[in-house]
Amino acid sequence: MTSRKNYYMMNEFKYINWIQKQIKYPPSVFIKSGDDAAAIRLNKNRFLLVTTDVIVEGIDFLRNKTSGFDIGYKSLAISLSDLAAMGGAADSLYAVATVALRPKMPNRFAQSLFRGMKKAADKFQVTIIGGDVSVVQGPTSISSTIMGIGQKLKPLTRSGARTGDAIMVTGQLGGSILGKHLRFTPRLKEARHLNRKYRINAMSDISDGCLADLDHILKKSKKSAVLFANRIPISRATWQLSRQTKKLALKHALTDGEDFELLFTCPVKEALKILKDRSLAVPVTLIGIIGTGQGIFLQDVRGKIKKIKPKGYEHKL
Amino acid sequence: MTSRKNYYMMNEFKYINWIQKQIKYPPSVFIKSGDDAAAIRLNKNRFLLVTTDVIVEGIDFLRNKTSGFDIGYKSLAISLSDLAAMGGAADSLYAVATVALRPKMPNRFAQSLFRGMKKAADKFQVTIIGGDVSVVQGPTSISSTIMGIGQKLKPLTRSGARTGDAIMVTGQLGGSILGKHLRFTPRLKEARHLNRKYRINAMSDISDGCLADLDHILKKSKKSAVLFANRIPISRATWQLSRQTKKLALKHALTDGEDFELLFTCPVKEALKILKDRSLAVPVTLIGIIGTGQGIFLQDVRGKIKKIKPKGYEHKL
Repeated sequence: MTSRKNYYMMNEFKYINWIQKQIKYPPSVFIKSGDDAAAIRLNKNRFLLVTTDVIVEGIDFLRNKTSGFDIGYKSLAISLSDLAAMGGAADSLYAVATVALRPKMPNRFAQSLFRGMKKAADKFQVTIIGGDVSVVQGPTSISSTIMGIGQKLKPLTRSGARTGDAIMVTGQLGGSILGKHLRFTPRLKEARHLNRKYRINAMSDISDGCLADLDHILKKSKKSAVLFANRIPISRATWQLSRQTKKLALKHALTDGEDFELLFTCPVKEALKILKDRSLAVPVTLIGIIGTGQGIFLQDVRGKIKKIKPKGYEHKL
Repeated sequence: MTSRKNYYMMNEFKYINWIQKQIKYPPSVFIKSGDDAAAIRLNKNRFLLVTTDVIVEGIDFLRNKTSGFDIGYKSLAISLSDLAAMGGAADSLYAVATVALRPKMPNRFAQSLFRGMKKAADKFQVTIIGGDVSVVQGPTSISSTIMGIGQKLKPLTRSGARTGDAIMVTGQLGGSILGKHLRFTPRLKEARHLNRKYRINAMSDISDGCLADLDHILKKSKKSAVLFANRIPISRATWQLSRQTKKLALKHALTDGEDFELLFTCPVKEALKILKDRSLAVPVTLIGIIGTGQGIFLQDVRGKIKKIKPKGYEHKL
């Protein structure tokens, strides 16, 4: 349930908003469409998280340039990143997938596609329980749904950010187009650790881009944010890409899509503990503070503050 | 988890068989990939049924000839038919869907697509809890996953047929290409009624064609079948189609795909009760008997028996 394609289809957000208004939810659905995953109450303590994503040739991967393995891996990993974004709250994970393949694809391709899926599944103890295969006279597409049953941990949503919260991010941002968008590690382990040990108020993954996903948190939480320009962790790929595109590395880091890192907010006290936590295998950076009102503001090195637009993923293929 | 496209992609069954061999299932998965839906044990009494399907323009519906509404309705109804095939054992139903749309599709099309989905969902108390939308430079495809939580009724599988069982079918068979393949009623209500009131040994829906789906039951149950040629309920559409194709109506009824009727086996005693049951809104017909060994045999009006091949869905678009 990411929306990485927002700048390709002008009306996607409008369409999804319209759809959400058509649906009446029973009380069992306690996290609705519009977060990284939906949640259904199974009983007092247990719940089911569900997320679904589709990836399409020409948008999410390239024909004859992306291996079947990478495509399969990405299809499941994207949904796993969505489950991570819910605070990794589910522990028994199950997946189904559908594949629409171009005609006469070699068996080798179809098999490596599944092997890629299975690689992602095995890494996070996901059981693939079913699927459907079809041919299509056009671009290949893969759709995956992951279901997770949880009990001990509380699902984290986009709507819990509080004024004064630190805004935190895992890993380094930007430049995923150079490779990371295919071979990333969903931050499920880190999300579980953070959710178990600390008071986290809001969480999302970065799929549309840091600013765009922060904007989702802010809109859902009815808050604003100040980001510190010199605190944004910029990936090596971003520096490389920036030399090619002549755009600022900071801009890439804030707006490139498909980082699949965690973006979360927590009280500053907790943030300080997290920054010192050596058991996290991935670096965590404090990049800003949640405020009242609305909008995203960027503070530059000299202390100057300016309002910025939550632009997201724009890489054209 | 139907496989309506088996004759389009030569290796689909081989591919799915190969996939099934790659997967190790934890004990929580008590009905595995290869039935109409998979089943996960939630606790002693409760379980989760999951089924997924993809429909593709050019195969499952035609560009500019099928309305958005019909496409949306079909995408969910196919998965609902799979849940019916499990004896309608789940009662709380939830769906997610992904849509890959051609660029610049009118809003009207996208909206009617969702309205079609919602029509199917509302008819059977399914809550649509999430989805993903993308564009694709080619044929539109829609993937749907339905999850159902059950407790009171036992899921029925393809593997329980016993020697001497009556082979039963709901409705009339064949000719779905003339319209029924888009606007059918998943037999969820009937499946629940049958599962609740009678001892049903095996159940499936007819998606690949009566013979092909019977063959699945026979292979899973390690049995054979005799069908009575003069007992096959032939639909009006089949007679019409038969005049166009010059093929025998019986052949259409036995091999056309996408009837989305129920095919089930039960002790003859139960069958006789079912045939007299006036509370079923759809006619049920006894079409044959389960035997030992393997193969499907057809008995003609004069009592002659010949072995027939389990040919399935072949309609070329």
